[in-house]
Amino acid sequence: MATNTPDYELYYWPTIQGRGEFVRLILEAAGAAYRDVGREPDGPAAIQEVLEGLEGRQPPAFAPPVLKADGATYAQTANICQLLGRRHGLAGQSDRDLYRVNQLQLTVHDCLTEAHDTHHPISVAEYYEDQREAAARRAAFFVEERIPKFVGHFDEVLSYTDGPFLLGDSLSYGDLSLFQLLEGLNYAFPEAFRRATEARDHLPALRAGVADVEGVAEYLESDRRIPFNEKGIFRHYPELDLSG
Amino acid sequence: MATNTPDYELYYWPTIQGRGEFVRLILEAAGAAYRDVGREPDGPAAIQEVLEGLEGRQPPAFAPPVLKADGATYAQTANICQLLGRRHGLAGQSDRDLYRVNQLQLTVHDCLTEAHDTHHPISVAEYYEDQREAAARRAAFFVEERIPKFVGHFDEVLSYTDGPFLLGDSLSYGDLSLFQLLEGLNYAFPEAFRRATEARDHLPALRAGVADVEGVAEYLESDRRIPFNEKGIFRHYPELDLSG
Repeated sequence: MATNTPDYELYYWPTIQGRGEFVRLILEAAGAAYRDVGREPDGPAAIQEVLEGLEGRQPPAFAPPVLKADGATYAQTANICQLLGRRHGLAGQSDRDLYRVNQLQLTVHDCLTEAHDTHHPISVAEYYEDQREAAARRAAFFVEERIPKFVGHFDEVLSYTDGPFLLGDSLSYGDLSLFQLLEGLNYAFPEAFRRATEARDHLPALRAGVADVEGVAEYLESDRRIPFNEKGIFRHYPELDLSG
Repeated sequence: MATNTPDYELYYWPTIQGRGEFVRLILEAAGAAYRDVGREPDGPAAIQEVLEGLEGRQPPAFAPPVLKADGATYAQTANICQLLGRRHGLAGQSDRDLYRVNQLQLTVHDCLTEAHDTHHPISVAEYYEDQREAAARRAAFFVEERIPKFVGHFDEVLSYTDGPFLLGDSLSYGDLSLFQLLEGLNYAFPEAFRRATEARDHLPALRAGVADVEGVAEYLESDRRIPFNEKGIFRHYPELDLSG
């Protein structure tokens, strides 16, 4: 929830879910008080300022999202997620749990980067329309080979507990991130996702379990949840999906 | 050093530095006892077995490297590096240090992924020779825009201490990883790297400082250090570099 006395400030682009959404989901699941600074009127300028390192007092960040907490800034999505997960009891009970959650988180990010590169295989400085031929080839490999491989891996990892979550019945931030990835794949590549998941038992339980977490359920219904769209990481270009 | 009573087992492809090298550098800098299982006679079979989850007793890993420690397996390079860094006093003194090192580590991995994709922009299942046209376009963007941006960022981050390392005069595992990235960029894209670094003060000090760490210096001279080659992540294809 966004309040007037926030513990955190999130700096991320205002019009897309993108990588910021992995941070938002943890904040919302934890019921943490935060400002979504990038979505405020001066958001883009504030993002630029925080990237450059808070007026020279802190090292710069390479890219958003950036989280400000206790006067310090933290960047890299998986790093921010780990910080928030540990602080809010969403990273398991032991170091072994922590590394297991982090391992899942980083595998989610690998798939996320590949999903992004289906529409931008050449350069983020060029439009999709100017790299469509390469995009078609890269996307074909992604929907035919990589989505089944990633999805199968995640389902198998979840099979090692009684579920519905990575660590069993205790929610971790890795579950939130896997949920977001699955939602995004389903949005962008519905046919490939349907085929890759139709024989999978554990992923539907994970998705339902996360969507049912109190803070998450409320968030997903709110206008704080930016809809998926074709400016973000997960873009629904039917020509890049498997044909139905 | 590899000994007969190892604390760790590393599982990674035997013929390339690749992502395994980030793990090796920490083990060597820490003077830890480890087996480099992938390079033993039955290495490839052992890698396959550990990926599949140690006979069903542990969740599978998506890809190498995998580290076995205390009977558990850990995957994802940045995750393994964090584990080893924390255990061997190479992750700073505080949580803030830990997140700062992890942030650097993850930014190194972002650049690493982009470096890999210069020669494989379409699919890892196809040869470079079958995706040369897309590779030429992706590499042009990488050497013209991305190398200068990443290198400039790393140099600026290092400027926030008296150096030579991220946290000042105390080595962290992030320094080892940044060193490896810089070595790789210099190997694969010597002209682009030369231009991007010629006005940078802090990166040469970081490279010299890491190369001078006792365990690292000894390792780099040993036959345990696999030379860079055109099967790995950093490949020297002159046609992908800037022209001199």
